[in-house]
Amino acid sequence: MSYETIAAISTPMGEGAIGIVRLSGEEAVDIASRIFRSPHNKKLMEVPSHTIHYGHLVEPSTDQIVEEVMVSVMRAPKTFTKEDVVEINCHGGIVSVNRVLELVLSNGAQLAEPGEFTKRAFLNGRIDLSQAEAVMDVIRAKTDEAMDIALGQMDGRLSRLIGALRQGILDTLAQVEVNIDYPEYDDVEEVTIPLLREKATWIMEEIEQLLETSKQGKIIREGLQTVIIGRPNVGKSSLLNSLVQENKAIVTDIAGTTRDIIEEYVNIKGVPLKLVDTAGIRETKDIVERIGVERSRQVLKQADLILLVLNGAEVLSDEDRHLFEAVDGFETIVIINKTDLPQELDLQEVRTLAKDSPIVTTSLVQDEGIHQLEDAIQELFYSGSLEQADLTYVSNVRHIVLLKEAHRTIAEALEAAEIGVPIDMVQIDLTRTWELLGEIVGDTMKDSLINELFSQFCLGK
Amino acid sequence: MSYETIAAISTPMGEGAIGIVRLSGEEAVDIASRIFRSPHNKKLMEVPSHTIHYGHLVEPSTDQIVEEVMVSVMRAPKTFTKEDVVEINCHGGIVSVNRVLELVLSNGAQLAEPGEFTKRAFLNGRIDLSQAEAVMDVIRAKTDEAMDIALGQMDGRLSRLIGALRQGILDTLAQVEVNIDYPEYDDVEEVTIPLLREKATWIMEEIEQLLETSKQGKIIREGLQTVIIGRPNVGKSSLLNSLVQENKAIVTDIAGTTRDIIEEYVNIKGVPLKLVDTAGIRETKDIVERIGVERSRQVLKQADLILLVLNGAEVLSDEDRHLFEAVDGFETIVIINKTDLPQELDLQEVRTLAKDSPIVTTSLVQDEGIHQLEDAIQELFYSGSLEQADLTYVSNVRHIVLLKEAHRTIAEALEAAEIGVPIDMVQIDLTRTWELLGEIVGDTMKDSLINELFSQFCLGK
Repeated sequence: MSYETIAAISTPMGEGAIGIVRLSGEEAVDIASRIFRSPHNKKLMEVPSHTIHYGHLVEPSTDQIVEEVMVSVMRAPKTFTKEDVVEINCHGGIVSVNRVLELVLSNGAQLAEPGEFTKRAFLNGRIDLSQAEAVMDVIRAKTDEAMDIALGQMDGRLSRLIGALRQGILDTLAQVEVNIDYPEYDDVEEVTIPLLREKATWIMEEIEQLLETSKQGKIIREGLQTVIIGRPNVGKSSLLNSLVQENKAIVTDIAGTTRDIIEEYVNIKGVPLKLVDTAGIRETKDIVERIGVERSRQVLKQADLILLVLNGAEVLSDEDRHLFEAVDGFETIVIINKTDLPQELDLQEVRTLAKDSPIVTTSLVQDEGIHQLEDAIQELFYSGSLEQADLTYVSNVRHIVLLKEAHRTIAEALEAAEIGVPIDMVQIDLTRTWELLGEIVGDTMKDSLINELFSQFCLGK
Repeated sequence: MSYETIAAISTPMGEGAIGIVRLSGEEAVDIASRIFRSPHNKKLMEVPSHTIHYGHLVEPSTDQIVEEVMVSVMRAPKTFTKEDVVEINCHGGIVSVNRVLELVLSNGAQLAEPGEFTKRAFLNGRIDLSQAEAVMDVIRAKTDEAMDIALGQMDGRLSRLIGALRQGILDTLAQVEVNIDYPEYDDVEEVTIPLLREKATWIMEEIEQLLETSKQGKIIREGLQTVIIGRPNVGKSSLLNSLVQENKAIVTDIAGTTRDIIEEYVNIKGVPLKLVDTAGIRETKDIVERIGVERSRQVLKQADLILLVLNGAEVLSDEDRHLFEAVDGFETIVIINKTDLPQELDLQEVRTLAKDSPIVTTSLVQDEGIHQLEDAIQELFYSGSLEQADLTYVSNVRHIVLLKEAHRTIAEALEAAEIGVPIDMVQIDLTRTWELLGEIVGDTMKDSLINELFSQFCLGK
């Protein structure tokens, strides 16, 4: 297939040593050669693939110098998009990258949409959809663990597993078809049902195994939405500060446009904690106090983890008891702070109220207990199984939804077969499972959905 | 000369499609080849210079995949630093670029200091100091004009002019020496003085011409520190918003560390206006009202441009008159706003108080007058002479200071010669001028100053 030649700034916006404007498409080298002047009069159209060339970009009508650059020429098909790709390395300033982009646009390139380079890699068959999605996961990874999962997926680990399952379904469907068309015995069903049972069970178990990784996978990929609550002056701010100081905070500034949206993460032993509404935690008083137990429970629903802080040096108050009510049923860690002071808290009552939630004691002013808290967080969400490096993790919500649906249809196929539903009805369920798994790798998916998906990518990728 | 092999992240921090970790030094290719695995078992040590290679980075002790990359190998001396350079293009995520950097550091590279790559380009003789400084000017340019000046300087335009002046001084010194050593006539002075006068006058005039460009050059490079003042409710915020909306605001987020420092620029016809303490303007009341005329004058001293806003629909108040006092002697544009309402302001008095400052009338609610204001700003600071593209602009404060000093010493030499000071005293002044000009291009400059200078560069350049 052949598309317009596209271009975009591919490095993060900001001031840096190097910025890159990338072109992809049939005319990429042609456009670049129109605006490129080499000191030795080198012609980009004639250079070998995968080579780098020093020179200046000029406005071709006036020959005025626009920027000093290094141009990389990479010829199809061994490129990111499987098309001709040109990367223009210029100075990493805001004016610089923008004027280079404008120059290539005014010389025939189209501005790429977000994710369009990766979309072409997908449409041109270099990678499948789950691999394409992993590209963005690599870029957005907040921890090494998240990046490792994404690298595995980008490398096709999930794709290969899904491919094997789909092949299994196809083989089964074919076998069933043969049995129906050429019944050597009269007891078609007696042969077909055990076959179906065996295959469907295998596929169902594989999907179950994948789904088992999904809770952890999703947390590692997206981070734990974490809320710190507690009465005034129990040490909420100290806790926040300790977590941030002990662990390198990862600040993600959404580049360019919306500099108001700043997310803050801390990396707790491989679990990215996303500190929700940090400013709010610092400044507002306890939300339960402010808006009541019931409404608090609504607010807390967004959280994956609640850190409930108590003051060990005071007796339990009704406010504290309300907090326990509010967090009932949520993943919670109870923190008894101020262990450096004489203890007044009724531990027995706290244990009762906390139910199954872990309890950690800290003296934040004396820097004590933070590591125990980190261990508790790790234990709650992340029981170390990522060390089984060969496990395929599912972390993408889209994949999880499709896997759950595929699990449902294969289970239905199995059940239908068991209770004697006609084989062709069972075949429908099997086919649906095959389609659902296909959507994960982008094999059976509508164009509109594909467009929607890539539009969530970042510019220049 | 040979230095340690250094490495740094060379793209702006943030999320983007591509990030680059750059290495420079004798071991650059060796270090890269230790951690690079090509699918076709390509060896980086053997590849031709200026070529690009796809593969994975691995932790060499475990062979675990760290990242999928494109590696560019550029062999000395045709590189940015004149050393072997390797650029590793990886995914532009925060975890990704950091883990690639860590990998090269743990395999033998040293973390580069800010500006160290450019410093090596200078120390290895590829560029002189004024060209090195222009590299950062290109990156930090806020407007096309600033970038064009920087590109010219990077290309050696200023260097060549300075070189010619220094050569002129050397020739003169040599000629004078000859005249003294081999006096064919008795009237050495009668021959030497006219020669000195001619040469010194030429050099002095050239320096004067350069200095004439410096006011504009500095503004174009650094932007105009602009303060908007006026009584409450005269339209200060509207003015700010109009300027920002009409002109693409350039937001510079100092990458990585200090995300509190955000500078906002608007580009007014090639003049970058740096809106000082924007938040302050939005929120605080008039500074004169708050701190009095005298102290206001101190504060306003930092400003290159003051926009004094009056309400045309009200009579002039004492507060307004205090404002005029406070801005007396500063570059000011007086803005009479709210021309859509019945006018009550005594224009005659405003004209008297404004003295030579331009007066512009606006109706910001009706979007009127903003273009006239922009014209006034352009006229005040920037009379279009940049269109003489062949003019060499001096924009760097360090250069301006040195040129002023060189102008003083050459003037002293000239004067000394005229009043009959002994020739060897005049020679001292000439030599000093030669040295001062040499400092601009880094030819006669202490190491400590050079280190200081490069430390102001950005990381990875």
